[in-house]
Amino acid sequence: MSLFEELQQLLAPDRVTRNQTILEQHSKDESWHEPCVPDVVVYPINTNEVSEIVKLADKYNTVIVPFGLGSSLEGSIIPYHKGITIDFSYMNKILEVREEDFLVRVQPGVTRLQLNKELKKHGLFFSVDPGADATLGGMTATNASGTTSVKYGVMRDQVRDLEVVLADGSIIHTGNLAAKSSSGYHLNGLFVGSEGTLGCFTELTLKVYGIPEYIMAARASFESINHAVDAVTAILQAGIPVARVELVDEKSIKQINLFSETDYQEVPTIFLEFHGNEAGLKQDVDFMREIVEDFHCKSMEFETETASRNRLWEARHHTAYAFIHGFPGKKQMTTDVCLPISELAEAIKDARDAIEGTGLPGGIVGHVGDSNFHTLLMIDVHHPEDIEKASLVNQRIVNYALAKGGTCTGEHGVGIGKQKYQEKEHGEAIHVLRKIKSAFDPGGVLNPGKVVTEVSEKSL
Amino acid sequence: MSLFEELQQLLAPDRVTRNQTILEQHSKDESWHEPCVPDVVVYPINTNEVSEIVKLADKYNTVIVPFGLGSSLEGSIIPYHKGITIDFSYMNKILEVREEDFLVRVQPGVTRLQLNKELKKHGLFFSVDPGADATLGGMTATNASGTTSVKYGVMRDQVRDLEVVLADGSIIHTGNLAAKSSSGYHLNGLFVGSEGTLGCFTELTLKVYGIPEYIMAARASFESINHAVDAVTAILQAGIPVARVELVDEKSIKQINLFSETDYQEVPTIFLEFHGNEAGLKQDVDFMREIVEDFHCKSMEFETETASRNRLWEARHHTAYAFIHGFPGKKQMTTDVCLPISELAEAIKDARDAIEGTGLPGGIVGHVGDSNFHTLLMIDVHHPEDIEKASLVNQRIVNYALAKGGTCTGEHGVGIGKQKYQEKEHGEAIHVLRKIKSAFDPGGVLNPGKVVTEVSEKSL
Repeated sequence: MSLFEELQQLLAPDRVTRNQTILEQHSKDESWHEPCVPDVVVYPINTNEVSEIVKLADKYNTVIVPFGLGSSLEGSIIPYHKGITIDFSYMNKILEVREEDFLVRVQPGVTRLQLNKELKKHGLFFSVDPGADATLGGMTATNASGTTSVKYGVMRDQVRDLEVVLADGSIIHTGNLAAKSSSGYHLNGLFVGSEGTLGCFTELTLKVYGIPEYIMAARASFESINHAVDAVTAILQAGIPVARVELVDEKSIKQINLFSETDYQEVPTIFLEFHGNEAGLKQDVDFMREIVEDFHCKSMEFETETASRNRLWEARHHTAYAFIHGFPGKKQMTTDVCLPISELAEAIKDARDAIEGTGLPGGIVGHVGDSNFHTLLMIDVHHPEDIEKASLVNQRIVNYALAKGGTCTGEHGVGIGKQKYQEKEHGEAIHVLRKIKSAFDPGGVLNPGKVVTEVSEKSL
Repeated sequence: MSLFEELQQLLAPDRVTRNQTILEQHSKDESWHEPCVPDVVVYPINTNEVSEIVKLADKYNTVIVPFGLGSSLEGSIIPYHKGITIDFSYMNKILEVREEDFLVRVQPGVTRLQLNKELKKHGLFFSVDPGADATLGGMTATNASGTTSVKYGVMRDQVRDLEVVLADGSIIHTGNLAAKSSSGYHLNGLFVGSEGTLGCFTELTLKVYGIPEYIMAARASFESINHAVDAVTAILQAGIPVARVELVDEKSIKQINLFSETDYQEVPTIFLEFHGNEAGLKQDVDFMREIVEDFHCKSMEFETETASRNRLWEARHHTAYAFIHGFPGKKQMTTDVCLPISELAEAIKDARDAIEGTGLPGGIVGHVGDSNFHTLLMIDVHHPEDIEKASLVNQRIVNYALAKGGTCTGEHGVGIGKQKYQEKEHGEAIHVLRKIKSAFDPGGVLNPGKVVTEVSEKSL
């Protein structure tokens, strides 16, 4: 029997496909990285099937790539070594809501909006919110974050337990249901962000939160991006507990207005949100207002109604799509550095200079509460000079961040796009990262070529 | 040359010792576990010396055990394989306070009170507060926590970067200064809680916090421990953002009163603290007051003055010592389970039954905001029946927690005391833990016999 036949026997014929359209759907993510089709796409419905698929990959000396919705931004799910792409679409059940324990147990194919729709019935919400309506399995694989991590933390902070299929097909649990543990090595943390290179997630137990009693959102607009960043730094220094604080530059606001039909003033803007009780929030907001006035805040608009708040955050979440929509035929290259807050203002200044030097359309948005910002550059992948220019911008921004104690990727992951910065960022620890990969996946079956590889560019 | 001579040459003669008194000081921690002296104790003053010591251990086919202040509770630092104990007392410098970034860089021998004394000058504090004035290196090694983790998180949440000497003497950094990162595998998380079995920490970069604008502490006393636990559960369910919430049973209050010269009512009590702005806190406290009344709260006392608040928390931190002081000649055996909050009330009921059955003196205290509780049992280690009784209590409490999705250790670590529960707790993942240990320390040089071993009791 061939691998294809064995897979068909293991699953059902309609859950194993070589249909060209489907292969192409699994050949790319939302990035500019070159597509590559897998040999076959499979749709398991349970953990045992995933385990058997991994064993078959090993038997036939091929590889597997786990696939959520393909919304990654660094090529994490592109199967450059071909093989089997495991699509988790059919493993999309919310298995348990433990309301009292603020925990949910889900399959990896559940998306964040799907989960939040269910949680709302219980007065709960899941906090991590990347721009895309990604799957929770994919978000765990890249240690995703978003606008709320300044208060609630990143994906890694939400994971209590993972069920994982390892390279040999064995099935483990990485954690438990307790709020903390000092037992054994911290496997949760190790698997979150491993991009399918150490195992395949088949079940996730995640922390959720009560919907806050009172929520207030605001937009503050500034004369310059520097004033805006300085205002954010001052707000954080003052210890005002923001739940969200997002920077959007004037070019991004313009694209947002075009795409989301909003009429926000096209100047550098901070989107903010506060969660708490009414009395506490009023005091926080008054304090915040005093601070931003020192930084030439032009105007401040509050959104207390749920509908206008939702519109605000939906507009923010769609910024990347707003650019893609605004420049048909072009692809987006996104930078993703994160660095200490004291270095943020200068880093953003340098990034703006870098972008403006290229003449490429693009903007800057940032989860500035975490000192993580993105430049969104629109490029024509058929024009090598566009790729070259954007790559140089990426390199300059990454090198700047690394020199200041930062990281090349705050939330998008390494994939292949940030591969070449790994040695520079991790130094001697790169050998430890490789040792871990070898210990978990000696045969190189699991998403090879991602996160760590044996070969990488020494000189940047 | 002998190992001893080589060590003397490497360091200075006065920083290498076989003095019997000093060996004995390094033979034990604060637990009941049997002491064992090392062959030699060394006091390095920098990272390179630590690296060379590890290389010498390997050369002479002996082992190393890193040692902070010996305040561990599970025998983590007892050198049962003899060898070299590395005492970090001389590596106790606060290297940098990055006020704007809410970060500090310290050597591993700095203690939490030493750090907080320095941070106070900057309007900052370090949040993690185990009972002992432990070293930050030791707290990182066991993933310590304490009364504030319900709001600020555990030790693992504070670590941004570690400088680590590995088994081969090489020196790595595990992280960076950014608030979040998706680059490479999460080495910070892996090393925190590794109890010296994967490497020796030589420098730590930790997150610190601004001292809150307003702090309010309270003691609420209840008719029964069940009412107290139910009240805490209700407070957490209601989403009231407590900074601390500690359960202390009537027997522990009695010991506290004797030791700390307080006159707290000797009934089951909840110690609480709230951090925030004045208006917000008042609203939270009013809401909390309404809730506790539903659970037969007998009285509630507020401590707003700094001195009385400090007395309250000092008394709480000294609970374990209060018992030790109260029962001269006896040792303490402490349990440390953590489980989902929905299971806490029943777990504490069962633990009380277990203790009372033994007739041993002891009490229950708990970081109930995390659903982590301790039973403190006083035993005479010369009476095998005391050890047997206490072991059975530990076993019953651990088995209860594991059956409910909890962990055998919430914050004290595995050491040797929780070794025998590792297979039961981690299931198939135990093989992964062993694989990690082998990948990092193939020669078994680093604190052997702790966290994971090849042999462990299958039947409990």
